[in-house]
Amino acid sequence: MKLQRLLLIALLLSTTFSLSAQIKWTQVAPGVWKGIIGKPEAYDLVKAGGAKANTAAIAKITAAQFPLMQGDILGAVKDGKTTLRFPLDKEEQLYGFGLNFQSVHQRGKILQLHVDHYGGKDNGRTHAPTPFYVSSKGYGVFVNSARYINVYAGSGIRKNAKTPPVEKDRNTDKSWASRPYSDAVEMLVPAAGVEVYVFAGPTPMDAVKRFNLFNGGGPLPPRWGLGFTQRVKSLYTSDEVAKEVDLFEEKGFPLDFVGLEPGWQSKAYPGTFEWDKKRYPQPEKFVKQMLDKGIRLNLWINPYVSKSAPFYPAIKPYTGSHTVWVGEVPDFNVPQARKIFFDQLQKDQVNIGVSGYKIDEVDGYDHYLWPDVATFPSGISAEQMRQTYGMLAMRYSADMYRKQNKRTYGLVRANNGGGVSLPYVIYNDYYNHQDFITALINSGTAGVLWTPEVRASKTGEEWLRRFQTVIFSPMAMINAWSSGTKPWSYPEVADQVKELALLRMQMMPYWYSEFAKYHFEGTPPFRGMALEAGFKQEVKKEAGSTNLEENPYAEATSKEIKDQYMAGEYLLVAPLFMGDTTRKVILPKGKWYDFYTGAFAGDGSVITVTPGLNKIPVYVKDGGIIPMMKPMLHAPKAGEKVDLEIRHYGTAASTYNLYDDDGETYNYEKGDYSWRQIKVTRDASGNLAGTIADAQAGKPNTVGNVTFKFMTK
Amino acid sequence: MKLQRLLLIALLLSTTFSLSAQIKWTQVAPGVWKGIIGKPEAYDLVKAGGAKANTAAIAKITAAQFPLMQGDILGAVKDGKTTLRFPLDKEEQLYGFGLNFQSVHQRGKILQLHVDHYGGKDNGRTHAPTPFYVSSKGYGVFVNSARYINVYAGSGIRKNAKTPPVEKDRNTDKSWASRPYSDAVEMLVPAAGVEVYVFAGPTPMDAVKRFNLFNGGGPLPPRWGLGFTQRVKSLYTSDEVAKEVDLFEEKGFPLDFVGLEPGWQSKAYPGTFEWDKKRYPQPEKFVKQMLDKGIRLNLWINPYVSKSAPFYPAIKPYTGSHTVWVGEVPDFNVPQARKIFFDQLQKDQVNIGVSGYKIDEVDGYDHYLWPDVATFPSGISAEQMRQTYGMLAMRYSADMYRKQNKRTYGLVRANNGGGVSLPYVIYNDYYNHQDFITALINSGTAGVLWTPEVRASKTGEEWLRRFQTVIFSPMAMINAWSSGTKPWSYPEVADQVKELALLRMQMMPYWYSEFAKYHFEGTPPFRGMALEAGFKQEVKKEAGSTNLEENPYAEATSKEIKDQYMAGEYLLVAPLFMGDTTRKVILPKGKWYDFYTGAFAGDGSVITVTPGLNKIPVYVKDGGIIPMMKPMLHAPKAGEKVDLEIRHYGTAASTYNLYDDDGETYNYEKGDYSWRQIKVTRDASGNLAGTIADAQAGKPNTVGNVTFKFMTK
Repeated sequence: MKLQRLLLIALLLSTTFSLSAQIKWTQVAPGVWKGIIGKPEAYDLVKAGGAKANTAAIAKITAAQFPLMQGDILGAVKDGKTTLRFPLDKEEQLYGFGLNFQSVHQRGKILQLHVDHYGGKDNGRTHAPTPFYVSSKGYGVFVNSARYINVYAGSGIRKNAKTPPVEKDRNTDKSWASRPYSDAVEMLVPAAGVEVYVFAGPTPMDAVKRFNLFNGGGPLPPRWGLGFTQRVKSLYTSDEVAKEVDLFEEKGFPLDFVGLEPGWQSKAYPGTFEWDKKRYPQPEKFVKQMLDKGIRLNLWINPYVSKSAPFYPAIKPYTGSHTVWVGEVPDFNVPQARKIFFDQLQKDQVNIGVSGYKIDEVDGYDHYLWPDVATFPSGISAEQMRQTYGMLAMRYSADMYRKQNKRTYGLVRANNGGGVSLPYVIYNDYYNHQDFITALINSGTAGVLWTPEVRASKTGEEWLRRFQTVIFSPMAMINAWSSGTKPWSYPEVADQVKELALLRMQMMPYWYSEFAKYHFEGTPPFRGMALEAGFKQEVKKEAGSTNLEENPYAEATSKEIKDQYMAGEYLLVAPLFMGDTTRKVILPKGKWYDFYTGAFAGDGSVITVTPGLNKIPVYVKDGGIIPMMKPMLHAPKAGEKVDLEIRHYGTAASTYNLYDDDGETYNYEKGDYSWRQIKVTRDASGNLAGTIADAQAGKPNTVGNVTFKFMTK
Repeated sequence: MKLQRLLLIALLLSTTFSLSAQIKWTQVAPGVWKGIIGKPEAYDLVKAGGAKANTAAIAKITAAQFPLMQGDILGAVKDGKTTLRFPLDKEEQLYGFGLNFQSVHQRGKILQLHVDHYGGKDNGRTHAPTPFYVSSKGYGVFVNSARYINVYAGSGIRKNAKTPPVEKDRNTDKSWASRPYSDAVEMLVPAAGVEVYVFAGPTPMDAVKRFNLFNGGGPLPPRWGLGFTQRVKSLYTSDEVAKEVDLFEEKGFPLDFVGLEPGWQSKAYPGTFEWDKKRYPQPEKFVKQMLDKGIRLNLWINPYVSKSAPFYPAIKPYTGSHTVWVGEVPDFNVPQARKIFFDQLQKDQVNIGVSGYKIDEVDGYDHYLWPDVATFPSGISAEQMRQTYGMLAMRYSADMYRKQNKRTYGLVRANNGGGVSLPYVIYNDYYNHQDFITALINSGTAGVLWTPEVRASKTGEEWLRRFQTVIFSPMAMINAWSSGTKPWSYPEVADQVKELALLRMQMMPYWYSEFAKYHFEGTPPFRGMALEAGFKQEVKKEAGSTNLEENPYAEATSKEIKDQYMAGEYLLVAPLFMGDTTRKVILPKGKWYDFYTGAFAGDGSVITVTPGLNKIPVYVKDGGIIPMMKPMLHAPKAGEKVDLEIRHYGTAASTYNLYDDDGETYNYEKGDYSWRQIKVTRDASGNLAGTIADAQAGKPNTVGNVTFKFMTK
């Protein structure tokens, strides 16, 4: 009897212990701590991504202590699953958990992080369900697991919570809430252990930078990647492509690379990964002809292998148990599989000058991809493969270019934590303009790039409004695979579209420097207001419908800013959508100026603007410096000198770091790059003057003549 | 080298073996086989439900062999998860996988079976995600796991499939399909083992009957449960309830039980489970006063315990780690928890005459219920608790009535496989009339009862159309918790509504016998056409939108019948919805007659009907016998004799088994019941004559005078 009691007590103690086990934290880079719970799996997101942390760059961020009380973070393994708990303060807001499309505030969300196409709801199923969140208090958390992680981002309420909510009587108390206050983020990782990382601030942006640099920093695209790209209609022939390219030239529209959609291969869905002989009889000649015109090619693929692919017999032993559109799924975790697959691409396409790929359908839908019961020769589970397949495809395709010491910049439909540094931009099939902007905001906390691509539109107005945002994004693209639209397809707005495309080109020195900051410093070039100093949004709940038949739990909705974003160091972009003539813009603390006129716009205020159809409201921070070039039709070639017009906004003295390198190779990794400081000073009588530091000897220098333009009179 | 090779071969063989491991099947009842894969968990759906298989009744179903090639069924355990595979034939259709609301055909679906509120998509998250399916080929499969099971119901395509689909080139082949043919159902059970049951036919209905009887057979409600029920507005006082009850009487509307919504308790969300002293100052007197008028009471609860509940200190040690609306969650798998909780209900409510409960919010939403990281004192995981909590609440609440030898008939928002026999009807917050009918169809293959409850309507037309279906359902109910509507709230249709409510009462002998067949024979009283002999629907795919911008994968949609259903042995109900004036009805092979007139309607044909607003089309099979009584305002009391008008339709001689017992107790379990055969014969000149077998001595007999009405002239 006594023994039984003792055993029971021992059992209870051991249970309690395992559930409240604190985590031992090890600092793995300045302001980055790793905690291990249970026995982490051999395969995880960081391993799949294959990036090396940029510890030297992390060290340059303001030093910071472990940002939470370590005793408040708990982890435990039970029944082969890991539970995690992180504390939340009353006024804390959370951002992140991947590429969400409809919400920025993640506190209170319940998600299952699962690579998938975006199905219209922010439920964790998205193209990049990065298990990373950043807190408004200035720290970040990353769960390095390639599993479907359940996230309760401040929704579950424990009976022994430190700050439990007060019980209310719904019958009589109008302040009763269907979602009472929760003081913790809880997660369930379906594995018997996991690695967790905590990133210090002190600001939310610092935590994001640490996360990005820990994953190798953002990709540095080639200069041409930041120009304009047109994806032509499926089944186009080489002649049709050439004709379309000529039209761009004739009409004076910029164009840097052209995307070929299904039809360039002899077979697709599944693919053969070799040119179709009818539509592309002389691929080598055609690619060269394009390159001679300054046009690069990007090829659509999905990685599912047709029995007609030349390498099919060789790759067959290294594919998964299940097929996708009857095509076999190469297990990119098996060296033979990736060698066989990418050798074909290298030999047939990359070696003749193809500049990149669009890797489609590595995300979902569930109905097309392998089921979770599938098996793969590497032993990696179907779930882990689903969470990382996009990353693997990006990683090993980028390797082809690395071998040639040429950068690539492509498109992909799935990424995840660990894939920050891969030179691909996410796109999808969904087509809601507002949600595309929200995704652009969330891309900044998901460690990914996202393009609000333009496909077709109901009206010229919609076309122009969409165009206005895509040129302020990581990839200025029309995707005409189905519609065949051209930039000039809506004649009533063709001039304005051309002007926008040329503005994209003019801003290339700015964009290029901002991407360099993504790579070298971890700063996402496109991001939401939450990462901006001086911006503070209250967490306000608004009452929902009071009709209990429609809203039985009297749910309130959260108010959040999801329609304006930061583009690079200095710009705030506030798009309008079809049907809008006016909008509110929230300007953070500090003076802001109109991008087009230099006029003062506001300071820590909410302004209402009516910009007209032809203009997208863009504001520049006081002291903002925007280096611009002339509106070229193609990105400058390696080494080509370009004159700069450096614009300055507002009245403050300031500096800007201009990045320079050859724009095409990986030589910057060996130090072949330069940062040149642009400096605007202000004398006692308020006159502004600008200078640019001299080029460093032996470093790339593509800056021609420099003129300064002081926009604010 | 040689050793390594041997080891590799051994490894490959063992992998192959574990993945293709065949299952050993044991016959556990006639035509019911159990297969075990790995080490099944101690807790499962059947154990949670607590029912005993009715093997004697199963033995009466046509004998049948194991319905599949055993070698085609595979199971394996890998990484702590169980994968299952079942074969599919080309022309096979699947039904089931729980209470779906928008689709009847389940072949091709991908689901994660997860107890939840219905969120608007048939994705496995529903109030009863029963892991049971029945094939058009006449067999059923049940996976007895209280886990979130992933189902690929003929979607995944293995590269080594027996009948692999042909690869097609999307570029050039118009017959390319985004969802190629799959020859297997695959499932992933997140546990290291599982019990699987196979139910033989020969018909799909036989397989369903076996499944239901294996789980104890359907519940037999008390007679009053099949009458009319009104759920009054929240916060009603006993005086208001009494006044409303009087109004029913005055206006001549039938009423058998009244539901009290939030407000009867002193506190709710979370609840105290004791009467509110202001609104219900004398509960015992009030309940008796109602019973004296022939009105029973049903009380709304959700099982989450307020700190103000009298038993809170006692139950606290037996609640889960997380709260629901700050209320604690009793772990009903701990005997103390259920004793403490249900003792309160028994003492405070059941013992004074309360007749049942409506158990709310045991399904979801995720935001309200405990997260999957929660723990429970019994050691049952949060996931298993989520899958079974509704079952446990039903089971142990029903036990209170069993102790008193009184039947109950209540409402619940979650059930699952294993809960077939529990006397509760599912309802929800969703309110789409069409989808409510589809749910009624699917309830027949989910082992549950479902009510398309009427709440409020935009127009009298909608009110009447909804009323027309709820009287042909397991529970004829208005749920006015929020709206306060009464049957007569739409004056323009009040007469018609009254007529329908009285029709419900007239048909009570039919409904009661049909429910007895659910209990004793396993035949679901409400079900889809797929279980009906003579009904055959082709599996046709219809092309979707050809605009690739809207439908990028050129998805086709499946055509299915989801708006007509069978009600008992003989009736086919074909509802109209708001805005409809006409509809098509598919009549299976065999002659069908109009329920109201007895006129011939069709035979194996599709008819178009324009019934007018006041009529819901209902058809009776040739030889259909419908026993009816006079339109009483309350169900007959125990032992009360009622005269029967027995209607016969068509020209065929036929029989009907009329069930009889005391209508209120469990004495039928001891044999206190009778089946009396009604027989209609036809002489050489075609004249019909009816007889009813004599009552058995010593058995309940509530049949008064019997008249026959031959509806078809």
